[in-house]
Amino acid sequence: MSTLCQPSVLFPQYKITQAQMIEHLEELHGDHPRLPLARRMIQNTEVNTRHLVLPIDELSVHTGLTHRSIVYEREARAMSSQAALEALDSAGLTPQDIRMVIVTSCTGFMMPSLTAHLINDLNMAQSTIQLPIAQLGCVAGAAAINRANDFASLDSRNHVLIVSLEFSSLCYQPDDTKLHAFISSALFGDAVSACVVRADDEAAGFHIKGTRSFFLPNSEHFIRYDVKDTGFHFTLDKAVMNSIKDVAPVMEELNQKVYNQQCAFNDFFVFHTGGRKILDELVNKLELPEDKVAHSRTSLSEAGNIASVVVFDVLRRRFAANTEEGSIGMLAAFGPGFTAEMAVGQWAA
Amino acid sequence: MSTLCQPSVLFPQYKITQAQMIEHLEELHGDHPRLPLARRMIQNTEVNTRHLVLPIDELSVHTGLTHRSIVYEREARAMSSQAALEALDSAGLTPQDIRMVIVTSCTGFMMPSLTAHLINDLNMAQSTIQLPIAQLGCVAGAAAINRANDFASLDSRNHVLIVSLEFSSLCYQPDDTKLHAFISSALFGDAVSACVVRADDEAAGFHIKGTRSFFLPNSEHFIRYDVKDTGFHFTLDKAVMNSIKDVAPVMEELNQKVYNQQCAFNDFFVFHTGGRKILDELVNKLELPEDKVAHSRTSLSEAGNIASVVVFDVLRRRFAANTEEGSIGMLAAFGPGFTAEMAVGQWAA
Repeated sequence: MSTLCQPSVLFPQYKITQAQMIEHLEELHGDHPRLPLARRMIQNTEVNTRHLVLPIDELSVHTGLTHRSIVYEREARAMSSQAALEALDSAGLTPQDIRMVIVTSCTGFMMPSLTAHLINDLNMAQSTIQLPIAQLGCVAGAAAINRANDFASLDSRNHVLIVSLEFSSLCYQPDDTKLHAFISSALFGDAVSACVVRADDEAAGFHIKGTRSFFLPNSEHFIRYDVKDTGFHFTLDKAVMNSIKDVAPVMEELNQKVYNQQCAFNDFFVFHTGGRKILDELVNKLELPEDKVAHSRTSLSEAGNIASVVVFDVLRRRFAANTEEGSIGMLAAFGPGFTAEMAVGQWAA
Repeated sequence: MSTLCQPSVLFPQYKITQAQMIEHLEELHGDHPRLPLARRMIQNTEVNTRHLVLPIDELSVHTGLTHRSIVYEREARAMSSQAALEALDSAGLTPQDIRMVIVTSCTGFMMPSLTAHLINDLNMAQSTIQLPIAQLGCVAGAAAINRANDFASLDSRNHVLIVSLEFSSLCYQPDDTKLHAFISSALFGDAVSACVVRADDEAAGFHIKGTRSFFLPNSEHFIRYDVKDTGFHFTLDKAVMNSIKDVAPVMEELNQKVYNQQCAFNDFFVFHTGGRKILDELVNKLELPEDKVAHSRTSLSEAGNIASVVVFDVLRRRFAANTEEGSIGMLAAFGPGFTAEMAVGQWAA
């Protein structure tokens, strides 16, 4: 038994509307033949605003991986401890109660990992286990939850702190003029979250009753990075849209096993947003009433795809909605591999 | 109960002696004032040979992070499956028996992680859990073992495959003329290993009886990367040498708890090599007979510091030495943070 407690989600100070982003791309690439198509596609993402760690004007000239790595580390250190302290407070625990700290982030690289900074800054125990996850992209938040649940299942004192941190704007490649680069530069946003997985049921939140990992064979090209002199270059194959039809039966199987009912009868969902079409596919393949993915749609609209942070932002909205005691739900995220991680559980108010 | 089975360790085809490396550095930086000091320090490393994924002449001109990332991915894919199949065979398992695949590597970055490649190439189950670890440096091999042991403790079918892969030569920075850059360019080597952690006691090997993680506060600067346009730049603070005095009491504590005896009375050790001085410090602080670290010294001499692969290379030598049934030992590694991971256990022949 483990409990996903109330997360803290922080957004960096700079904000950009999608209209401003289109304007920015038009200024940079006004004569690009596919820009009108990119504009329509960006308008179709249903992203309205995103938060950035630097103003878009500063991001429009690539300052190099050296400089961007310095910004990444500076902002990561500045924002992660605050989020962690808020999450610990919500979970009714102190930093010294934590036995494992997981950090997920695919938009920058630090070694030592940010886990070391958190242990130092929060004065956590010297025996704290560190688990940094950098290569699971958008699925990393849910993967961290499921690995935390595994660890929590070993001992009722195995409380885990998960900090997820994405500064996608520091992977913005202003000189990349491929169509999918335009789209992703307007899809991904920046955010930081922290969430405690308590190894008992002594807190309100999502009580995890079962988890499952899923890998879709021969789909490594669906979502990937090219690692270049200028950092991480994100590429997306539109075939990824077809992957939900393969993962949906696995989601149904997990739900049947734990709750003996179809997903459609669940009370709520904490879904990674991916993009509008991924959510449409989930609604379609799981035959869900549209209102059950409303929090994911709002998160996408207000923050963009914030990668491994998304599930925590959607979970935050679930807490704010005063979810009823005993409601049954599913949490799921998708990412490179193609990989999915899912968990079913019950709400304790 | 989990068992660390016989690992497979593969070395890439190019080999360089320390004399050849010194010659190479003298050709590149002949007029550098600190080169004579670097030469003496390199001779003191007690590294005799190392293996490289490319010939040293090709590495001496930095071809850029874009190119190096392509080489990293090509070689990682080529070598990892073979190592994995050999390790599975030694463990008496098939790829379909594996429930979690962990990949450790701090010398390159791929997303999707190499875990995806392994699941595809070995036709592992779609439910296989992926855990890529990139940011724990030299401690990652032992960290992977301890996390695998946690997972294995949940179910006797939770077998884990760990693939560790380091191509340190692809982080060689020929234009970096700081003294520590000279030393590290002659210390780190390339290698790939695979090892199965069986979730039962039905194989020969190291039966894990207890594990421990350790973090030394305010030591983030001891071992770190600067992430630059040219990739990862390794920096080492000599203060790291003093960290063994802090970790040794924790090693003793774990040993006492599980075996009620001092480390010095253990039959064997599987130590990360770090460098000659780290091994000297371990011998000194744990009051060990010198022959008990002989395998770590030989690994260092024959392969250099192969980062997260070291513990598996030392473990391989422990298997080859026909270790006696019931012998008591400890496995430990050290890395950025400053972080240590240790496990005590008993040998089953």
